[in-house]
Amino acid sequence: MSQLDLVISGGTVVTAADSFPADVGIRDGRIVQIGEGLAGADRIDATGLLVLPGGIDAHVHLDQPTSDGTLMADGFASGTRSAAAGGNTTVLPFALQIKGQSLRSCVEDYHRKAQGNCHTDVSFHLIVSAPTPQALGQELPALVRDGYTSFKVFMTYDDLVLNDAELLDVFEVARRERALVMVHAEGHDAIKHLTRRLETEGRTAPFYHGQAHAQIAEREATHRAISHAQLIDLPIVIVHVSGRDPMEQIQWARARGLRVHAETCPQYIALTADDLRGLNMDFEGAKYVCSPPPRDADSQAAIWQGLRDGTFDIFSSDHCPFRFAGEASKDNPRARTSFRWVPNGIPGVETRLPILFSEGVVKGRISLQRFVALTSTNPARLYGLYPQKGSVAVGADADLTLWDPRMTRTIRQDDLNHGCDYTPYEGMEITGWPVRTLLRGRTIALNGRPMGDPGGRHLARRTSEAFGEGSGQ
Amino acid sequence: MSQLDLVISGGTVVTAADSFPADVGIRDGRIVQIGEGLAGADRIDATGLLVLPGGIDAHVHLDQPTSDGTLMADGFASGTRSAAAGGNTTVLPFALQIKGQSLRSCVEDYHRKAQGNCHTDVSFHLIVSAPTPQALGQELPALVRDGYTSFKVFMTYDDLVLNDAELLDVFEVARRERALVMVHAEGHDAIKHLTRRLETEGRTAPFYHGQAHAQIAEREATHRAISHAQLIDLPIVIVHVSGRDPMEQIQWARARGLRVHAETCPQYIALTADDLRGLNMDFEGAKYVCSPPPRDADSQAAIWQGLRDGTFDIFSSDHCPFRFAGEASKDNPRARTSFRWVPNGIPGVETRLPILFSEGVVKGRISLQRFVALTSTNPARLYGLYPQKGSVAVGADADLTLWDPRMTRTIRQDDLNHGCDYTPYEGMEITGWPVRTLLRGRTIALNGRPMGDPGGRHLARRTSEAFGEGSGQ
Amino acid sequence: MSQLDLVISGGTVVTAADSFPADVGIRDGRIVQIGEGLAGADRIDATGLLVLPGGIDAHVHLDQPTSDGTLMADGFASGTRSAAAGGNTTVLPFALQIKGQSLRSCVEDYHRKAQGNCHTDVSFHLIVSAPTPQALGQELPALVRDGYTSFKVFMTYDDLVLNDAELLDVFEVARRERALVMVHAEGHDAIKHLTRRLETEGRTAPFYHGQAHAQIAEREATHRAISHAQLIDLPIVIVHVSGRDPMEQIQWARARGLRVHAETCPQYIALTADDLRGLNMDFEGAKYVCSPPPRDADSQAAIWQGLRDGTFDIFSSDHCPFRFAGEASKDNPRARTSFRWVPNGIPGVETRLPILFSEGVVKGRISLQRFVALTSTNPARLYGLYPQKGSVAVGADADLTLWDPRMTRTIRQDDLNHGCDYTPYEGMEITGWPVRTLLRGRTIALNGRPMGDPGGRHLARRTSEAFGEGSGQ
Amino acid sequence: MSQLDLVISGGTVVTAADSFPADVGIRDGRIVQIGEGLAGADRIDATGLLVLPGGIDAHVHLDQPTSDGTLMADGFASGTRSAAAGGNTTVLPFALQIKGQSLRSCVEDYHRKAQGNCHTDVSFHLIVSAPTPQALGQELPALVRDGYTSFKVFMTYDDLVLNDAELLDVFEVARRERALVMVHAEGHDAIKHLTRRLETEGRTAPFYHGQAHAQIAEREATHRAISHAQLIDLPIVIVHVSGRDPMEQIQWARARGLRVHAETCPQYIALTADDLRGLNMDFEGAKYVCSPPPRDADSQAAIWQGLRDGTFDIFSSDHCPFRFAGEASKDNPRARTSFRWVPNGIPGVETRLPILFSEGVVKGRISLQRFVALTSTNPARLYGLYPQKGSVAVGADADLTLWDPRMTRTIRQDDLNHGCDYTPYEGMEITGWPVRTLLRGRTIALNGRPMGDPGGRHLARRTSEAFGEGSGQ
Repeated sequence: MSQLDLVISGGTVVTAADSFPADVGIRDGRIVQIGEGLAGADRIDATGLLVLPGGIDAHVHLDQPTSDGTLMADGFASGTRSAAAGGNTTVLPFALQIKGQSLRSCVEDYHRKAQGNCHTDVSFHLIVSAPTPQALGQELPALVRDGYTSFKVFMTYDDLVLNDAELLDVFEVARRERALVMVHAEGHDAIKHLTRRLETEGRTAPFYHGQAHAQIAEREATHRAISHAQLIDLPIVIVHVSGRDPMEQIQWARARGLRVHAETCPQYIALTADDLRGLNMDFEGAKYVCSPPPRDADSQAAIWQGLRDGTFDIFSSDHCPFRFAGEASKDNPRARTSFRWVPNGIPGVETRLPILFSEGVVKGRISLQRFVALTSTNPARLYGLYPQKGSVAVGADADLTLWDPRMTRTIRQDDLNHGCDYTPYEGMEITGWPVRTLLRGRTIALNGRPMGDPGGRHLARRTSEAFGEGSGQ
Repeated sequence: MSQLDLVISGGTVVTAADSFPADVGIRDGRIVQIGEGLAGADRIDATGLLVLPGGIDAHVHLDQPTSDGTLMADGFASGTRSAAAGGNTTVLPFALQIKGQSLRSCVEDYHRKAQGNCHTDVSFHLIVSAPTPQALGQELPALVRDGYTSFKVFMTYDDLVLNDAELLDVFEVARRERALVMVHAEGHDAIKHLTRRLETEGRTAPFYHGQAHAQIAEREATHRAISHAQLIDLPIVIVHVSGRDPMEQIQWARARGLRVHAETCPQYIALTADDLRGLNMDFEGAKYVCSPPPRDADSQAAIWQGLRDGTFDIFSSDHCPFRFAGEASKDNPRARTSFRWVPNGIPGVETRLPILFSEGVVKGRISLQRFVALTSTNPARLYGLYPQKGSVAVGADADLTLWDPRMTRTIRQDDLNHGCDYTPYEGMEITGWPVRTLLRGRTIALNGRPMGDPGGRHLARRTSEAFGEGSGQ
Repeated sequence: MSQLDLVISGGTVVTAADSFPADVGIRDGRIVQIGEGLAGADRIDATGLLVLPGGIDAHVHLDQPTSDGTLMADGFASGTRSAAAGGNTTVLPFALQIKGQSLRSCVEDYHRKAQGNCHTDVSFHLIVSAPTPQALGQELPALVRDGYTSFKVFMTYDDLVLNDAELLDVFEVARRERALVMVHAEGHDAIKHLTRRLETEGRTAPFYHGQAHAQIAEREATHRAISHAQLIDLPIVIVHVSGRDPMEQIQWARARGLRVHAETCPQYIALTADDLRGLNMDFEGAKYVCSPPPRDADSQAAIWQGLRDGTFDIFSSDHCPFRFAGEASKDNPRARTSFRWVPNGIPGVETRLPILFSEGVVKGRISLQRFVALTSTNPARLYGLYPQKGSVAVGADADLTLWDPRMTRTIRQDDLNHGCDYTPYEGMEITGWPVRTLLRGRTIALNGRPMGDPGGRHLARRTSEAFGEGSGQ
Repeated sequence: MSQLDLVISGGTVVTAADSFPADVGIRDGRIVQIGEGLAGADRIDATGLLVLPGGIDAHVHLDQPTSDGTLMADGFASGTRSAAAGGNTTVLPFALQIKGQSLRSCVEDYHRKAQGNCHTDVSFHLIVSAPTPQALGQELPALVRDGYTSFKVFMTYDDLVLNDAELLDVFEVARRERALVMVHAEGHDAIKHLTRRLETEGRTAPFYHGQAHAQIAEREATHRAISHAQLIDLPIVIVHVSGRDPMEQIQWARARGLRVHAETCPQYIALTADDLRGLNMDFEGAKYVCSPPPRDADSQAAIWQGLRDGTFDIFSSDHCPFRFAGEASKDNPRARTSFRWVPNGIPGVETRLPILFSEGVVKGRISLQRFVALTSTNPARLYGLYPQKGSVAVGADADLTLWDPRMTRTIRQDDLNHGCDYTPYEGMEITGWPVRTLLRGRTIALNGRPMGDPGGRHLARRTSEAFGEGSGQ
């Protein structure tokens, strides 16, 4: 047995199944020993800390262009620095196809943006906005074979929405190529109808964004996506599920044996529609505008139940950062005329893990094992990164987060590392923080600050385990 | 790092979360290293094998007296030998209180029976049949504190049935002492009513046992037990759930946030009511008489769905062996006059793991992780044996089962080690068998044969994790 | 066409299907013409009034002895006078078997009590409290053939409760004789358990009656009764359903095609558990003590939904009157020591129709047709009185209630005709009152006051339509 | 009381609530007396017959153009003659807007087609295929005020389909004008996708029509329509519901208090998908091609349950007749190349009532009252014809069907009066037939043959009772 490069000693190793005190021995960036009394060339003392598999944030938007020229507040550099500081070692950003653009060139674009800038590992989901014969017939199959094994489709947004015929065509290709489709399920026409009505009534403040994006519209689109997938016999992921109504559809589908996976996000447990009121219905509410929007306390309770009982497989940030102030921001002149023009999205890649830990594990709503499953193991399995990523296991990359389960801190924009100028969670009291993040054995963040040069890589991915037998787990 | 006593090398370690190739290093009967290239004083080559946590069979009847004098076919010696040969390292038999007997003396009886005879570790669940003030007020609390942290109650059987008032009293004590209650949920009066009607109609063959123990009666009792537990605010386990109807009640309860756990058994996936027909409605059917009885193909499908989706936490054998032939057996003179007198119970401790692996993992119905969770990790957590038992983890007892996932065999009574004279699974083709079982690092079975002296211990147990926060997992 | 005795002219005839302006012609106590411009020997002007079939109150307690010597506030005279004043022409009281008493002699007792005292027609349901072989084997079959085609069983109350074996035996007889069983579904042991616990905690005020009779216990017993009926293949009626939980069981059963009928009562739409608080948790709450007790606003909403959508077939009063003050009343010395001793039951035969009309029809929650169906047509069909009773139809008895849909009044004890010294609905504002009640063409009440001599008869009844084909309606 | 023109004597009057022997007296085309021993200028002996309100067939296609030039086999003359012979007195055909056409001129077209040709009363539902601002803003409101108070929208068919934005716009107008919207709920894109796939696979026989119109696609569209209606707060009718899946959505919606009404048709209880096989997958199957297509035995059972329990409000024919043979028929050259070109629709206006009576009432699945409710009273209420139509009630039009409940006949094309050259129910044995149909007191059919000149009128209709309070009934 050759010498270990590094030993994480004295901590409690946590996996999606177990917790036990053990040292972790690392060589060449991989975990090679888990045991008692390990020694190595280097040593990090983890006494009193949890040794978690590095967080995998499977839903992150970085450096995407927007149709109205708003600038995304994070590129790959700041976005992955922020992620690392928040305890993540891998993020899955999107490569967004612009209409008219080939998928291949889109992917190349994002590689250029990412190249040399990543502090965590990354891997792109594709966003298919133009399912041309060329895209579906040739590009997608080739890209899936190259390891881009998942892609996202939108059922809303003018520049992204696919109609039902397109969805079915994309699903058909996905089934043939065994690619996992992520669905943004909100009913486009319903939202437009409600938006127009609200504007007609003079209800244009950011708060009304939440009413325009009614939960009924999300539920309807969820049912529709599930039905299309059932017709094609395809597993899918309903992403960023916001409340009780779409959840009910997912549970209904699963009880019938359909392969429907689901994701939820911090905004659906830590925010509510009331946050969009701002201070007395003013424009501050724009800070909380995202889609689907946060719902009510009843839906929060439902989401917790779903995190506990397995309705949700994964918990991601849907980090989609826009600055509040300044040019090309949320607070742009047109947005002041109607919520319709407020850029949709909020930052969260850095606060995802602390919020779930503090509200979930510390408050006794979910176990530590479930926390790891939701934030690391399941995303790795669902998106084809396992077993290289997603667990503290021999042979896996030494992507580890040392977590202090007792540390208390208040979320403050001043302490965060993202490119955004605010956090929607300002002032939230948190127990449990990551104190050190290691990517392949190298520390990339310490005590809430990113460290070192960008050494993240782009990862080619396997077929999702959603296609595997016994994947019902 | 001191010398390892034993290394299991070259296998694939499997936990409820992960699978990865690694050696397992053992010292003083505990797992102390999991890693690459381990060396120790001794070595077992596990190339091509899975290294599983030893099976924990949480529902086993050994050496129990029966009210009609039938002899149980297995005592602690043969029962635990059979268990070991079937890949188990811990079994949880019952200490059955006979009416009039004090609980403490009952426990002492079973310790005497077990003492020096156990080839696996054991730990007793109590069966409370006489909830006297003495039993509930003094004995139970003391026994729980001594580590007998679970007990079973019956809603049927003349000599065991508790009425609703008694159930509520027992539940109340369980809540106060944080003991986990296992419920045999079948409606006693309904079964008696149906039995009498069937006998009146001359329907007395073993087959009619399945009709007397109607699924409706099981569903009703399940609902009733859940309601009582809800009134007391107590987590419970519904054991040996047989079909779709009681499952539906359990799912309904969970969707409301009630803490209802559930167990199922091999007979509900591998047998059906038709097996009780025997050869043309003859007495051979008695070999399959157990309660609840096997149901139909639809219920089998429901059970599989429940094993997959988490409705079931654990998969146990409900090993309850009676010989078919000879004195004090299933084939006794009175039993020939009516199914009512056929001893209820079938053997299965040795075949539990192979049947679930072959029908579940090999046929793609459940994942390998789920197999481990159902058969080892979850029973350990639910019954307070974790983290000493239930996983391949540093610090845990070196209770390991080396499993050949490709070995095919036919189940034959001749090959089994139990004390019974038949197996209900005779002739079943199985893929995947345990080839070696280790208890605290010592081999207790090899290639289907028990080995060595009885070194099993009785284990005092912790409070069930069902009482823990976040236990919803 | 011979001369009509009486014409009700100018009103709007209402049936469970229709409303239309028409005169109603009566001869020999029967309706013989419905049409325009009828003339007869006598004439009642019903201009502006609804002409409804007389109310049938299918759940009324009169002159029953109680185990603790409390006196029921109404005998047949005052009870049926009160009923008539409230727009009813038929009531179905109970003939309560006392343990040790034969059913036949019990029935004879009640005939003696009723004889010559009834202002409305009556017909007895039996209450079977002692299902002896004699009672089940001989008396019940004979009584059913004599027209006592329904009986009630209790799942609670020390002196009435049947255990599961007895319930199943009674159900079996009911099936054979095609008698309809009404079930008081509350779990006896659960209530006793909760009662004891509350008393131990010093919670003895009337308010705690509502907590002791938990909705969970009602739901459990409902499920149990349904399961027993399913085993026997018997239609049943769950009477006085109080809230969402038992309703859910009934709906679940019906969706599976089981023949489960259901009744609810005014107290479950017009009272809540808070009424049992009295004035600051004092003994005034005893005025509202009945079983099952009123629940909360959510259950009220569920009950309304069930009245609308057909979950409930019938709406009865469960009139069970005890005086509040004076000897052998609710306010007896022992009752002051614990809610356990407060007589269970409240008056309501006179206010049933106005409350449902005002809260239901006037407030747009149910249609006029549904009102008639719930209060007259369905009870007649369910209990074998149709077509003699239950509709405004040619050939039917001329049992009619002239209803002023616009009259407003406040419910006042001073205005009521029952024998009780209070009404739980004191002060309730009502729109819509009966202004005249006719039994076989003879006016028995006018403007809230009973009229004339007691001319009511006891009715032998047919087999319930619940046994008929197509009875799913 | 002046002289009666006509008396129907000796029959049994049946309404949605009641059955009773009575004569029915008619004057000036209206029912003016219901009673015993009536005398009039004329008399029809109905001894042994049921006197039902004339059937109202709320879903009938007559003389509609089709996009591919196929001729509809029935115009207003033959269609209403066939309806009359089948026991109907009112039919509600569609006035189909062709794209580009104004709604008003469309209505005028259909009036021209109907004028002088109708043997029953008729009233047009509009079909809105081009929801232009002109149509929605001006024409529809005016037409609703003129008594066209219902209209139908399609979620499939190339020439009729409305997208979600259009549906929402139409729903919004319907809500404002209190018009009832009928929804043909099948997912257009899904059907096209499946059609293309089946054609690619060479599966082009009529049988595959049933696979292309998958029940999943119907369920999805049903959920979508319900969601849109929920957003707008509009009652809707889901027409021609074919099976368990869409039913489940409707029940789910109602349990939440949504105002969703539902219709089913004879083809969903009397045909199955297997009928589309023809004789060994030949073109005979085209005779059964309609949309949604007949499903399987399980769905038939579900439909019966829904007819019984009130899930369905109305039972219509969806008569949409195309000839099988000859020019512009089902058997056209293009249809032979693919099911896609087989005209969708089957005849049924004449057999609707006998099929439901025979399979429903005679076989004990539904009561006689429910039969009347489904086929006459509820359609009248739902579509604003009540109380002029829909019951045997004083003041109503004397639209009556004399029904022989014991007459047995075999359905034979040779005996029918429609313009089609086949019936999909050929050879079906029926018990219970209409022997005479009267429209406003005038006999329009006798013993299966139409009689007399076309005296039917077009009826302006009221607002649907679906908008009323208490309409939940």
